[in-house]
Amino acid sequence: MAHIQVPEGAPGILGPMAISPESTKALRELVEVLLRGPNTLTPAEREMIAMYVSSQNDCRFCQMSHGAAAAEHLGGDYDLIDWVKRDYGTAKISDKLKSLLAIAGKVQKGGKHVTPEDVARARQQGATDKEIHDTVLIAAAFCMFNRYVDGLASVAPQDLSTYPPRAMQIVEKGYGSHIFSKAQNVKLKV
Amino acid sequence: MAHIQVPEGAPGILGPMAISPESTKALRELVEVLLRGPNTLTPAEREMIAMYVSSQNDCRFCQMSHGAAAAEHLGGDYDLIDWVKRDYGTAKISDKLKSLLAIAGKVQKGGKHVTPEDVARARQQGATDKEIHDTVLIAAAFCMFNRYVDGLASVAPQDLSTYPPRAMQIVEKGYGSHIFSKAQNVKLKV
Repeated sequence: MAHIQVPEGAPGILGPMAISPESTKALRELVEVLLRGPNTLTPAEREMIAMYVSSQNDCRFCQMSHGAAAAEHLGGDYDLIDWVKRDYGTAKISDKLKSLLAIAGKVQKGGKHVTPEDVARARQQGATDKEIHDTVLIAAAFCMFNRYVDGLASVAPQDLSTYPPRAMQIVEKGYGSHIFSKAQNVKLKV
Repeated sequence: MAHIQVPEGAPGILGPMAISPESTKALRELVEVLLRGPNTLTPAEREMIAMYVSSQNDCRFCQMSHGAAAAEHLGGDYDLIDWVKRDYGTAKISDKLKSLLAIAGKVQKGGKHVTPEDVARARQQGATDKEIHDTVLIAAAFCMFNRYVDGLASVAPQDLSTYPPRAMQIVEKGYGSHIFSKAQNVKLKV
């Protein structure tokens, strides 16, 4: 049960989002620009960073949702996403993405864990300053989203078949209000 | 020295923000709605939550900036803000705010640290579901901002006299683009 009253049946982050339209608008814009805005990192790469950080924070809803989004961006390659989550160092992804996931993992622990050597390694693999910036900000943002979801004890669907359809919608239409409209129509006494 | 190239002299978060106008717009909107939007928690109370989480994350720039903003909202009461940071349990603030700071401290460690007892205690002190929601989201958001600042090794001004003038500007005009305009005018090769 969630710590606060949220609309029944709204999964994960959609519960708390439903009772705070103003902050939800800003959060929606942020996740859209970070994961889907114009960028030299592909949406799949950025969703993998989000999924990886969420798994390190043990946030079930976020790791399932963004893992599914990453997989759907790759034509449904859920095996690769599981591999990245389990052991990205041996997964079939670029060395550049591996070096960025290493930075993301440090950010998850705390900003000061990122070293000049982590950054130098990413540059050696071809990462630009903007890509390093975006990796740090995506990782930091998911330390927020994960805490928002779990800090309110939001309920993550146990039925794994519910994640791919939402992920397909996200891949097609993004993180805009259509995803959240049902939950947001519910008014709560606060 | 920052991990990536940012405009010289842009303090703390203003450095990385300057190289990413799109995400900066969303971040600015988020902090404005969280800390200054219409709310039953005062801006000073919300700035104290931001300051406290930033101090727990050992983020110098954020704790100095938001501590100064909290103090300026209270007519310059820097002593109270230092007291809250040092030992909020004995500080001259409401029991409700103390119970919300306890929740914020749990969120800083990780979302799952927040217990039903923490939430029940806040309710007993008169906190509404929306205030508990906002406390969790503000604490989560500063786990993002702190990691964004320190994950890129952004430079925090050592000269403490530089924080109050910026804080006064924030109290008067908010977190809009006027604060960041100088830094944002600098274009960087990325």
